[in-house]
Amino acid sequence: MLKYQYIAIEMERYITENSLQQGDKLPIIETLISHYKVSKSTIIKALKLMEDKGIVFLVRGSGIFVRGQSRQGYVNLLPSQKFEQVDHNTSPAWRKVVGMDIVGALPEVAKALGLENCSKVYTVKFVHYLEKQVLCMEQVFYNKDIISYLDKEIISNSINNYLKDVLGLKIGFSDIYLNLDKLNTEEARFFGLKLGDPMLCKEIIYHLTSGQPFCYSKAIYHYKQAKFVIKGNSVNSL
Amino acid sequence: MLKYQYIAIEMERYITENSLQQGDKLPIIETLISHYKVSKSTIIKALKLMEDKGIVFLVRGSGIFVRGQSRQGYVNLLPSQKFEQVDHNTSPAWRKVVGMDIVGALPEVAKALGLENCSKVYTVKFVHYLEKQVLCMEQVFYNKDIISYLDKEIISNSINNYLKDVLGLKIGFSDIYLNLDKLNTEEARFFGLKLGDPMLCKEIIYHLTSGQPFCYSKAIYHYKQAKFVIKGNSVNSL
Repeated sequence: MLKYQYIAIEMERYITENSLQQGDKLPIIETLISHYKVSKSTIIKALKLMEDKGIVFLVRGSGIFVRGQSRQGYVNLLPSQKFEQVDHNTSPAWRKVVGMDIVGALPEVAKALGLENCSKVYTVKFVHYLEKQVLCMEQVFYNKDIISYLDKEIISNSINNYLKDVLGLKIGFSDIYLNLDKLNTEEARFFGLKLGDPMLCKEIIYHLTSGQPFCYSKAIYHYKQAKFVIKGNSVNSL
Repeated sequence: MLKYQYIAIEMERYITENSLQQGDKLPIIETLISHYKVSKSTIIKALKLMEDKGIVFLVRGSGIFVRGQSRQGYVNLLPSQKFEQVDHNTSPAWRKVVGMDIVGALPEVAKALGLENCSKVYTVKFVHYLEKQVLCMEQVFYNKDIISYLDKEIISNSINNYLKDVLGLKIGFSDIYLNLDKLNTEEARFFGLKLGDPMLCKEIIYHLTSGQPFCYSKAIYHYKQAKFVIKGNSVNSL
């Protein structure tokens, strides 16, 4: 992790631990420079990263201010560093591995991963919980040419760390797709809902820095639990 | 608009008009510098902006590559510069103003805008269409202390330009909330769907650069039309 990323995480932790509220002012840049003992450009990079992630907003000539907490029950739609460091004992969000297999890729999966139909892929099924309620069921597919080995222990811990630290993969960008539908019989039974009740489907295609897709996730959400927030950054900078 | 923003839009147009595909390589930075007659830092800012918006990806030591088109029928969830310049005659997406009023803010609206209950707000109702199908109905609320005057002509044109150019407002960041529910009788009738069919609710709270919320939008989507894509940027940079 680069120094400015570390500082951004530290500052985010400070904001959370001190329950700072929307509009609360953070120390000036000079104070941050001397506190973290880094250059001005490092602090500015850290602040830019926090601004992009919706943690702070900058008012030119006035200072750095905290953005408000999101509404209760809404989870960040975009991946956040914090989610990597979840403590399963205290966190309201956790997941369970319910199955793992090597299968031939169906057309939908093959297309997402840029493979021929029936190419071999690892598939893992998860159930995610939030506040002890079922949040979603997720099926993840990994291109077996890129991820040649997986087991339950790796999956139960941090797959991301395994991909990065053990396999040396450079994880790049992702495409996220959302759409709505009605639950089919099997899904309705799983959630304890009725056939035809609403569901949200979230698909993510993860790419290496080279642009090659290596992982495809498809999750179906319980409609009462599917509450997402996106903290948009400056509209002006678009 | 700043020069690097202009260049980013120009380059995006070039990619669209030439139907460049995922993995297609763009010219090297030196070529872009001489083509646009700007400094290296301007080009790098433009490329960073395009990377953040999911238009290109950068491979260190290798070059700048185009990110693929999104799936057909999926619209960008995050606001994009392009959406400001929609030509209603050729674009598949357009909207109709179906009502406008000054009302007292209900608790939900007052909370979103940081106002007392019953404070005066402008409210505007829109119906959005995509490919001639009803996409969503949207109700927008504006804090009347900040936006003291609105009329149908302003609304039918670009409200954003009016807020920025006429009122001189500095538009900052936004919070986007998504959740699911079932259609009520009135909503079902509007969409020509059944009571209890799925719907997606998208709320956006827009803030000034000062952090003050000034606009709250609540939109209810037809479940067959609610298809969103988010082009995530580099996972490593999170």
